[in-house]
Amino acid sequence: MDLNDIRGLTDAINGELRLFFERESAYLSDIGSELEPVADSIGHFLLDSGKRLRPLFAAIGYLGVGGGITPQAIKALSSLELVHVCALMHDDVMDASDTRRGAPSIHKQFEELHRTNNLHGSSAQFGVASAILLGDLALIWSAKMLHESGLASDQILQSLPIYDEMRVELMAGQYLDVYEQALASESLERSLKVARYKSGKYSIERPLHFGATLAPKYSQEQLNVYSRYGLPLGEAFQLRDDVIGVFGDPAITGKPAGDDLREGKRTVLIAITSSEVNSSQRNEFAKYFGQNDLDLRGVEKLRQIIVDTGALKRVETLIEEMTSNARNALNNDGIAPQAKTLLEEMITAATKRSS
Amino acid sequence: MDLNDIRGLTDAINGELRLFFERESAYLSDIGSELEPVADSIGHFLLDSGKRLRPLFAAIGYLGVGGGITPQAIKALSSLELVHVCALMHDDVMDASDTRRGAPSIHKQFEELHRTNNLHGSSAQFGVASAILLGDLALIWSAKMLHESGLASDQILQSLPIYDEMRVELMAGQYLDVYEQALASESLERSLKVARYKSGKYSIERPLHFGATLAPKYSQEQLNVYSRYGLPLGEAFQLRDDVIGVFGDPAITGKPAGDDLREGKRTVLIAITSSEVNSSQRNEFAKYFGQNDLDLRGVEKLRQIIVDTGALKRVETLIEEMTSNARNALNNDGIAPQAKTLLEEMITAATKRSS
Repeated sequence: MDLNDIRGLTDAINGELRLFFERESAYLSDIGSELEPVADSIGHFLLDSGKRLRPLFAAIGYLGVGGGITPQAIKALSSLELVHVCALMHDDVMDASDTRRGAPSIHKQFEELHRTNNLHGSSAQFGVASAILLGDLALIWSAKMLHESGLASDQILQSLPIYDEMRVELMAGQYLDVYEQALASESLERSLKVARYKSGKYSIERPLHFGATLAPKYSQEQLNVYSRYGLPLGEAFQLRDDVIGVFGDPAITGKPAGDDLREGKRTVLIAITSSEVNSSQRNEFAKYFGQNDLDLRGVEKLRQIIVDTGALKRVETLIEEMTSNARNALNNDGIAPQAKTLLEEMITAATKRSS
Repeated sequence: MDLNDIRGLTDAINGELRLFFERESAYLSDIGSELEPVADSIGHFLLDSGKRLRPLFAAIGYLGVGGGITPQAIKALSSLELVHVCALMHDDVMDASDTRRGAPSIHKQFEELHRTNNLHGSSAQFGVASAILLGDLALIWSAKMLHESGLASDQILQSLPIYDEMRVELMAGQYLDVYEQALASESLERSLKVARYKSGKYSIERPLHFGATLAPKYSQEQLNVYSRYGLPLGEAFQLRDDVIGVFGDPAITGKPAGDDLREGKRTVLIAITSSEVNSSQRNEFAKYFGQNDLDLRGVEKLRQIIVDTGALKRVETLIEEMTSNARNALNNDGIAPQAKTLLEEMITAATKRSS
């Protein structure tokens, strides 16, 4: 296994996640066989897919300040993936999303378990309760995985302030997003702020910082380089997400075509569209956007408006500018060369993807 | 402030919780004023009431192995209250409970905020999303409070395995409870198992262990004494909860009379009743138990059956036996005398309460 490339690091991260999951899953089964579906669902969610973006950035952040890759380090770095599992599970309950990565979301799986076993009470309520608890458990497992990683105590302790702040920012960003959707705001400034909190910091900058603080030694200047790289790239990452939510191919995304349009999700892409529509486009847009039963024809109409107003093009330009800012931040001697190469590669992974 | 009695310890715990909350609340406001309702709601939930049972047991566990009370220690020990805040907030969403401590539960508060501000989308969905995020934030704040308490690093590190295991057990116990309700099981053995996981370990044994591991030094024998005391007392605590859920005074509990009967909650009390009813009682019981619109007359009928079958009496006897087992565990020289006195007092607080 070559730990100097993305593939090798991803394999190592997957290996540690699997080992950790297997131990915790056995622990749950020992409490009671009723907990086996809980473990199974988390296991599939965690291990069947996922790009490991946050653990990868953490690993590169760690390498960039001179950290040596060991199984203990990989275990500690991989713990971020379980924070993300919590965020996604809870997100699906909050959005009432029925699918995730092409499969039923967790609350839907447990709704089905309730129905199949003819259990008492509301199946939907049982599904929601289970998904909340599974998300909570994933969040707690993340901390457990970090704490028991076997890295030197000093390194673990020194990572905790960033680890905690990242998680607070994540939940604050999630609330801002939920609130923003409820405001149905068309403000570009506001939607950029949500993108910054929800993804700019959480997806890239904080994982890089977390990785750096897990290494024996790092400097404030190194953290600053990671911020200058991570913040714009994180926002570009979120903008790419927004584009995929509207134009993505269901076969690749695992979500229905135009899902974000059906949900009426307020994104930077939509804010720009709203500011550029003429009056007939505005009426047409209002007619379809956020309709629960939006069909492919409606999706196509909305996509056309987004293209015609130039909003898609402007978002692509924004992504390019942010990406270029991220790239420029790497012109710095403070980060190990090997890590700089990986950070270059990750720019492509974060912004040129289609799912 | 006298830190040698329950009152003094409670005041010190409340003081640290308030200080921590004020800092974190200011941090959220700095991100955006939209987060002020989030901070306010957590603040009221955390600070307006609560018996601080878990931090108190943790503090006594710490004292009992020779830990010296300092503000740093109180801060670390108090962090448990925020785990409990998460559990209660998420519990109310999972049970769809509309009130908590006589006030609207968190999801209801945010449902109302959504309605008052004429926000877009479903008010109920906004309420649920907010309550999930507030609970997540409380769980993360707990860890942050512990990590930044200022206790010696070795002491914090040595508490983390128990801290994590306690939280895993809590979520596992919550799922067992939800599942048990959905099974509508009448098994005494099963409901005792749920009581053990949900409360026996989480409410008393684990907080005592957590406190002990936060002290500079503790022995396995001391942890064992805490288990022999904490497990039966925790189960007695849960049985008292079950009795209050059926017979409690709404003016004291802040919940409607007979709320657990309306919810159809499967508890040890109900399991014993089910095993002792004659056939006419069984029909009568089935007619009222778990009815959403159960009125006071129906509550009275169910209470009468629970009394007539001798189930209430048997639960009170169980509480006494468990309490006496807990008391016997204190005949041990390994625990500091001052802590033993406090543990005696806590027996009363846990089992003779009416809310």
